[in-house]
Amino acid sequence: MGFRNYWFPAMLSRSVGRKPASVTILGERLLLVRHEGRCYALEDRCAHRGVPLSVGTCEFPGTATISCRYHGWTYDITNGRCVGAVSDGPDSPIVGKVRIRSYPVEERKGLIWVFIGDGTPPRLEEDVPEEFLDERAVMGVRVTVRKGNWRLAAENGLDPAHAAYLHRNSWLMFFRRFPAFKTDIVPEIQGPWVGYRQGPSVMESNYPGLGFWPGDARHWWRKPRNRGPTKTQLRLPGYLRVNPFPIPSIVHFEWYVPVDESHHRYFQFSVRSAAGLAAWRFRLAYWLWWRWLAHVQFNGQDAWMVQLMEPFYSEEGGWQRERLFRPDVGLTAWRMHCHENGREVQKGWLYRKGEADGSSAVEDCFDSTAMT
Amino acid sequence: MGFRNYWFPAMLSRSVGRKPASVTILGERLLLVRHEGRCYALEDRCAHRGVPLSVGTCEFPGTATISCRYHGWTYDITNGRCVGAVSDGPDSPIVGKVRIRSYPVEERKGLIWVFIGDGTPPRLEEDVPEEFLDERAVMGVRVTVRKGNWRLAAENGLDPAHAAYLHRNSWLMFFRRFPAFKTDIVPEIQGPWVGYRQGPSVMESNYPGLGFWPGDARHWWRKPRNRGPTKTQLRLPGYLRVNPFPIPSIVHFEWYVPVDESHHRYFQFSVRSAAGLAAWRFRLAYWLWWRWLAHVQFNGQDAWMVQLMEPFYSEEGGWQRERLFRPDVGLTAWRMHCHENGREVQKGWLYRKGEADGSSAVEDCFDSTAMT
Amino acid sequence: MGFRNYWFPAMLSRSVGRKPASVTILGERLLLVRHEGRCYALEDRCAHRGVPLSVGTCEFPGTATISCRYHGWTYDITNGRCVGAVSDGPDSPIVGKVRIRSYPVEERKGLIWVFIGDGTPPRLEEDVPEEFLDERAVMGVRVTVRKGNWRLAAENGLDPAHAAYLHRNSWLMFFRRFPAFKTDIVPEIQGPWVGYRQGPSVMESNYPGLGFWPGDARHWWRKPRNRGPTKTQLRLPGYLRVNPFPIPSIVHFEWYVPVDESHHRYFQFSVRSAAGLAAWRFRLAYWLWWRWLAHVQFNGQDAWMVQLMEPFYSEEGGWQRERLFRPDVGLTAWRMHCHENGREVQKGWLYRKGEADGSSAVEDCFDSTAMT
Repeated sequence: MGFRNYWFPAMLSRSVGRKPASVTILGERLLLVRHEGRCYALEDRCAHRGVPLSVGTCEFPGTATISCRYHGWTYDITNGRCVGAVSDGPDSPIVGKVRIRSYPVEERKGLIWVFIGDGTPPRLEEDVPEEFLDERAVMGVRVTVRKGNWRLAAENGLDPAHAAYLHRNSWLMFFRRFPAFKTDIVPEIQGPWVGYRQGPSVMESNYPGLGFWPGDARHWWRKPRNRGPTKTQLRLPGYLRVNPFPIPSIVHFEWYVPVDESHHRYFQFSVRSAAGLAAWRFRLAYWLWWRWLAHVQFNGQDAWMVQLMEPFYSEEGGWQRERLFRPDVGLTAWRMHCHENGREVQKGWLYRKGEADGSSAVEDCFDSTAMT
Repeated sequence: MGFRNYWFPAMLSRSVGRKPASVTILGERLLLVRHEGRCYALEDRCAHRGVPLSVGTCEFPGTATISCRYHGWTYDITNGRCVGAVSDGPDSPIVGKVRIRSYPVEERKGLIWVFIGDGTPPRLEEDVPEEFLDERAVMGVRVTVRKGNWRLAAENGLDPAHAAYLHRNSWLMFFRRFPAFKTDIVPEIQGPWVGYRQGPSVMESNYPGLGFWPGDARHWWRKPRNRGPTKTQLRLPGYLRVNPFPIPSIVHFEWYVPVDESHHRYFQFSVRSAAGLAAWRFRLAYWLWWRWLAHVQFNGQDAWMVQLMEPFYSEEGGWQRERLFRPDVGLTAWRMHCHENGREVQKGWLYRKGEADGSSAVEDCFDSTAMT
Repeated sequence: MGFRNYWFPAMLSRSVGRKPASVTILGERLLLVRHEGRCYALEDRCAHRGVPLSVGTCEFPGTATISCRYHGWTYDITNGRCVGAVSDGPDSPIVGKVRIRSYPVEERKGLIWVFIGDGTPPRLEEDVPEEFLDERAVMGVRVTVRKGNWRLAAENGLDPAHAAYLHRNSWLMFFRRFPAFKTDIVPEIQGPWVGYRQGPSVMESNYPGLGFWPGDARHWWRKPRNRGPTKTQLRLPGYLRVNPFPIPSIVHFEWYVPVDESHHRYFQFSVRSAAGLAAWRFRLAYWLWWRWLAHVQFNGQDAWMVQLMEPFYSEEGGWQRERLFRPDVGLTAWRMHCHENGREVQKGWLYRKGEADGSSAVEDCFDSTAMT
């Protein structure tokens, strides 16, 4: 379902208040709630009979607790310990004997980050790049839940070949002359990032037996872009950095946070380093232009493809039947990278029982690395 | 799925006429139809090719028969025997060789009761209390299909702890001062009924580290109730008696009739012993007040909890993972009682084949009796 | 799921143009597309990552190719060979190494016919009768997707007993006096066709213990039909011929083309041999009368029964539990015929892997031939 023992973005800060909010990450139900300005994350399931605590209330004003709506089992939101059971009185023997899962939380850049994993979490900075967390980073954000396994979405993000083909008729690229294809794609691993280098782009070419392509090479309104190369890199547990995109001053990030096997929560960020007036100008430009052109329409084409791939991979044996081609070396490198570096693979609750011995490492599901 | 070899309420009398009605109980499809004032229940499935007989018609006016809509296989509604096959002529060899299941039916108190089971049924009075069947019993009824396995609904009914917690903000209880908790809950079995005794209630208490509760103890408009105790009792195959509720003169009954594994038909009754003008006054009060306050809003809170518990028990291993607490002794007693006294457990049609030998008794699914 | 190695009608000719259309037959996703007037059928799934080619476009105007929307893998629509991969340049090594399934197509009588099978297909005339393909054959067509496994639909088509019972109250039969039942039904196999002979019909009869039937025998407006017998015949891979229906000059055909296990595409044809003005008069009569009376309302009663049978056969073990009766000898003959003559049984893609050795013949699922 996804990789475990990482920090994930869970929700926008402004969506979490004193009323609990509910979110599912890697198949785990979480509640997020704020107390005295700080945000906490708990398993969204009362230990008693499984009722979601997110429908509960704070029955003891001023305390950092939440009480289950059903029988008033009361949990310390800072650590998940059951500290009271209202309907069993102050001397309830259950108190202190039960604990629900509590998740480490950080609140940075207007986002709630949650560590889904076991043991002591690393610092957030180990999982999220500095330029993203930087004080001067200003960002435009869009959060949606999309169909399709997160792996398909992540692989689409890294894939260099579809960019110049699928997106050439997007509104964002209307004035841009696109190359026919890119040459010499070679995977490149830089620390935690999997990316690729590429050779010169060919603007137009003659395909044997087929003819010249692309036809739009002669559209007078399209101009070749005269900018430095775009660097696209993917990183565990599944997020992408595109620098720059859609314009030189903006860095694009996107996280693919698994919800369940066939859905992921998709966080898109346009990030710019700026302050004061420049920061406000950027925010305005994001809401006027970039959000609609890049995050909605351009990335909407990606969402369409991911959704169309989903049945092939989930029902028709796609992981065994797919045929990769030359530009997919980056995907193969990514799969190998996951296989070797993924901290832990998420399993359903039934399987998690046996995890105490800590044996199960990264699974075979990432073995599919054959190439044509 | 539920207990078998019991009488169940199936439908309101007024919903069954000469046109067949269809209802599913314990996963069995039944048709109910009336002939010369009397109601009959048959398997709602033609023996030929499985078409529901409830879309059939009576082709031979005056006879107690129903003919399948597809080929005119004609069944005696009093015993399920195939007595004709119209499209094969009067000499059809199938006649007399085929029989569909026929269910014992009783019609009492405006309800159709059906015996789902094998062999000779007991008298209805063995499964339904006399005060309910009594001639002077006047009742208000509400029938709905709710999400959630019937066991969750039944256990919610018996559960003493949630009453004073979950329902304290219901409209019905607006003027009532509720205790913080009840003490010394002890299960009590009286004949076929599983209930509990309880010690004194505590109106307000100080919970260590949390504070005083409840805050509403100081609402001036709430008055402590000065009435005798309410007796709540649960009985096989799954129905509850609350005496009195919502006011001293009314006894509340509710049946949880399994439809399938995740739905039950919920029959709510407000019963009062009365006659003449008093009976009509009660009916008026039921429709003006008690139906909306008790059956709709108050019990709607229960339905909400049952629905929220359902995924925990059906998908997340709730029966193994739940943690019961002190007030749940009644539930544990109920589970033990079911385990020891349940007449028979319902299985799917595939499993019923092997039942001829009568070996399979009550199943392990009711073994979950651990307590914290 | 159905029989393989046959020609099936896939779609109306007029629904297929230069924009690809998508259709599922026997669980296989196909795309149909037209080039220079001719229609071609391909697997609707790019070999690369499974995206449906039917969302693709023709990137090289004038060539018989289609390019995948995602990365521009380009296929020759006449044979399924990958002849280009736009985003990998003209020298892409994938070219010539990959091939998707291509299906033999014939276009006749305003329909696209596709051969779903392996090896060289037989001539279309071997699977479709001459009177249907005949130049003078004029037809009215209706295409719908209906619930229910195709076998239930096919067996309903052949079944002689339901005709005079189920349909007697259809609008089409309002003025017709129907027999009570037919006698001496005997299966009759004529070449590839399974049908039945029948003895004299009995217009009214006295059913022991039940009474006279039918009551409508005395409706003054109903007249006995004074025509030759109707011949109903069923043929592999699943289509029916009724001659004549609904009036003497019209032959009725219907194909049950499996979509998946619980749906079939239902092609209804009213066919008349005519030319010139007579042809146009027939088309007018079809659209004024026969379509609504025969194809919509009369056959709609069949669709209703098929849908009602579906849960019995798919969930409740109908193939084991059904009880056939005397008029069902035709069905039994049909099942035996399928068992002995079906060319190949369709399986899911997982099972098709092992098919290279060609061992798996017709399956046991057609063994259910018991009779009462």
